[in-house]
Amino acid sequence: MGKYKGQSRLVLKPKSTQEVSQIMKHCWERRIGVVPQGGNTGLVEGGGVPVKDEVVLNLGSMNKVRSFDPVSGALVADAGCVLEVLSQHIAPHGYIMPIDLGAKGSCHIGGNVATNAGGLRLLRYGSLHGTVLGLEVVLPDGTIIDQLSTLRKDNTGYDLKQLFIGAEGTLGIITGVSILTPPMPQSTNNLVLALNSFENVLPIFKKTRARLSEILSAFEYFDRNAYELVVKHKLGKPLAEDEIADAPAFVLVETSGGNKEHDEAKLQEFLEEVMSDESLVKTGVLAQATEQFQQLWALRESIPEAVSKEGKAYKYDISVPVSTFESVVAKTRERLQEKGLYQTPGGVREVVGYGHIGDGNLHLNVVAEKYSDEIEAALEPFVYELVESHRGSISAEHGIGLMKAHALHYSKSKESIALMKKIKNVFDERGIMNPGKVLE
Amino acid sequence: MGKYKGQSRLVLKPKSTQEVSQIMKHCWERRIGVVPQGGNTGLVEGGGVPVKDEVVLNLGSMNKVRSFDPVSGALVADAGCVLEVLSQHIAPHGYIMPIDLGAKGSCHIGGNVATNAGGLRLLRYGSLHGTVLGLEVVLPDGTIIDQLSTLRKDNTGYDLKQLFIGAEGTLGIITGVSILTPPMPQSTNNLVLALNSFENVLPIFKKTRARLSEILSAFEYFDRNAYELVVKHKLGKPLAEDEIADAPAFVLVETSGGNKEHDEAKLQEFLEEVMSDESLVKTGVLAQATEQFQQLWALRESIPEAVSKEGKAYKYDISVPVSTFESVVAKTRERLQEKGLYQTPGGVREVVGYGHIGDGNLHLNVVAEKYSDEIEAALEPFVYELVESHRGSISAEHGIGLMKAHALHYSKSKESIALMKKIKNVFDERGIMNPGKVLE
Repeated sequence: MGKYKGQSRLVLKPKSTQEVSQIMKHCWERRIGVVPQGGNTGLVEGGGVPVKDEVVLNLGSMNKVRSFDPVSGALVADAGCVLEVLSQHIAPHGYIMPIDLGAKGSCHIGGNVATNAGGLRLLRYGSLHGTVLGLEVVLPDGTIIDQLSTLRKDNTGYDLKQLFIGAEGTLGIITGVSILTPPMPQSTNNLVLALNSFENVLPIFKKTRARLSEILSAFEYFDRNAYELVVKHKLGKPLAEDEIADAPAFVLVETSGGNKEHDEAKLQEFLEEVMSDESLVKTGVLAQATEQFQQLWALRESIPEAVSKEGKAYKYDISVPVSTFESVVAKTRERLQEKGLYQTPGGVREVVGYGHIGDGNLHLNVVAEKYSDEIEAALEPFVYELVESHRGSISAEHGIGLMKAHALHYSKSKESIALMKKIKNVFDERGIMNPGKVLE
Repeated sequence: MGKYKGQSRLVLKPKSTQEVSQIMKHCWERRIGVVPQGGNTGLVEGGGVPVKDEVVLNLGSMNKVRSFDPVSGALVADAGCVLEVLSQHIAPHGYIMPIDLGAKGSCHIGGNVATNAGGLRLLRYGSLHGTVLGLEVVLPDGTIIDQLSTLRKDNTGYDLKQLFIGAEGTLGIITGVSILTPPMPQSTNNLVLALNSFENVLPIFKKTRARLSEILSAFEYFDRNAYELVVKHKLGKPLAEDEIADAPAFVLVETSGGNKEHDEAKLQEFLEEVMSDESLVKTGVLAQATEQFQQLWALRESIPEAVSKEGKAYKYDISVPVSTFESVVAKTRERLQEKGLYQTPGGVREVVGYGHIGDGNLHLNVVAEKYSDEIEAALEPFVYELVESHRGSISAEHGIGLMKAHALHYSKSKESIALMKKIKNVFDERGIMNPGKVLE
């Protein structure tokens, strides 16, 4: 978001776990702060950006695949491997990575794990807490913890690796990752539906799960304003204007399965069922070829880029009940109207909502002509309190980082935060590991 | 296994989280040891059995479902709910529990989480580290940690709940569980194959994954000796003797899918493919009706009961590479032969192997006429060292408990164990929580 600029002058690029360990020992003895850096693609500026004069430890030179087992699908790789490079490595064996992100061309697997990245495949393959089999981590004092297991099941003692997943580099430096990769689907399809009202999203989601069951791989939502931004900035091919008419909400459904014929039959039957009910759907488009499949995805995947082109964005990545997605966006817009900041000179241009229905994860984006203290004051803590009122999460998939460390209490109780601080102290009593991030 | 007898006289049955908190506060102040107890069905006598004179805290009276969301499938329940009761609660809404165990009629969901139970559905739905959405836990000092979230995604701070999953009640008492339940499959089928050799297991597993892909829900292995025990004790209907001939290995394949017609077509095609290769398979039986489905499952599920009827069992629940399943059993048998303890008076009757191929989890059972120090000395640390030589886990799904606390180091490094002890100390510096379990 360009809100944080790092100040460090020293960037180290170790080539091995041993080198990482030596650097950490050195810094531990001298109480020098260290910031681990992956692909530096994060949203909350958690892992990769120094606050003061910490040493930056960039893992980009640790980029080798250590092993891949084509029977079990267990992949072991250096933390600095780029996600897309790993996908390419395992594709010839018939496997895919269990996560997929917009930043796949530059983000590192170690950074994905450190931030517990979510993304488009979470609905199907679950979170990294389930797919990561093991980690190799260097602790702040230089100790190497080797839990780089390729076992799918291991109940021996506390599952320490889980603490590092989503800790955003505040407990140690992930140097190696073992992850279970799923078999590549033989057939992938998608469709986009323009709905008569937001209230239809949930009934359609239920029908989708019933009809498409185990082949459902994504169920994405975007509102009309998000759609219009993508079309305005020519980042996606618009649907037929007369057919979508005044549809206020859209969903994209993706299937991935093992048998093309069966998958298409299921999808066709599903589409006929929802289209037959005119109160549900205005129109539906089923991709007929690879090119159209990409075009439909572009309508959803280009939203972040369209938002950036439209102006300066305040981005909230929240978990709230799916039934409240529309009202959370509407209430945020009303708040800005009340403050005289909506569609006024120097103010907010638009408020858009999109996200993963299957995961209850809403991306709330407020696009302004420019960043201003007034807009920020109108939005925070307003948005956090709104999320708290729904018992939601103020950070569904992008973490806490530096930006939201002050707001952690909206999603976690004081007892939980006290425990987190004790855990942090076990690993890093000198406070050198990614200082200022996650916990204040 | 009947090896451990509890000595405690005081059993408390709290009715609420508040009561659990009050009991813990009382015990914390007086440094009284506490053992949480669920359905008491564990194998390693971890959670449920006191070592000295600890108070037993039985959660059986906390057995209410707190909420169920039929759109997302998020279930929130008291820790003392019986697994099967929960299954029955959500079945009318079209959902199933993501775990299934032989002990489902008496085990508690809280105990399942505390022991990170695996079971028959892990291949399909993943481990509890992925499906548990939140926990309510009472810490040793009585503090209540409420992380009973129903959010599928929440990246706010360290994921503390993960530490309690598999901690076997040594860090706190789980009083409530929020868990994501998957939609109920519309169609379930199975088949059993008798193989020409153990070496065929892996090629067949690969074919199974390719052909059955997303509908594959179990791939179980059992060796000839395990099969013979089930038949001998009349716990399963034998397959046609002339057809299986001298087959040394069996696999059971189960599918669960959303479309009966599609699923049966996939299964039929798969069966024709493997049966057409005589070097792979001696015979295959595809269940034609519900009754036969149960009969085929009985051949695999009755093995533990058959083992118990045959004699006194030494049970090892290990993770090792699938390719070594047969050799691990064979080497254990050879070891007992060398020591003059195999099929001799008072000695071992049989060594059998069975387990979950999809998870790399082998159940190695040594059945003896009676327990003896000689047999134990022949088996331990022999089996643990064998597992260690394959970088395996000495406890894949049944935990460490009291029985294996001395053997933890075969699967975890001294650095990892040191960290576990520090974590234990954060939660329980007075050492009152399930003393003697997991960590020595």
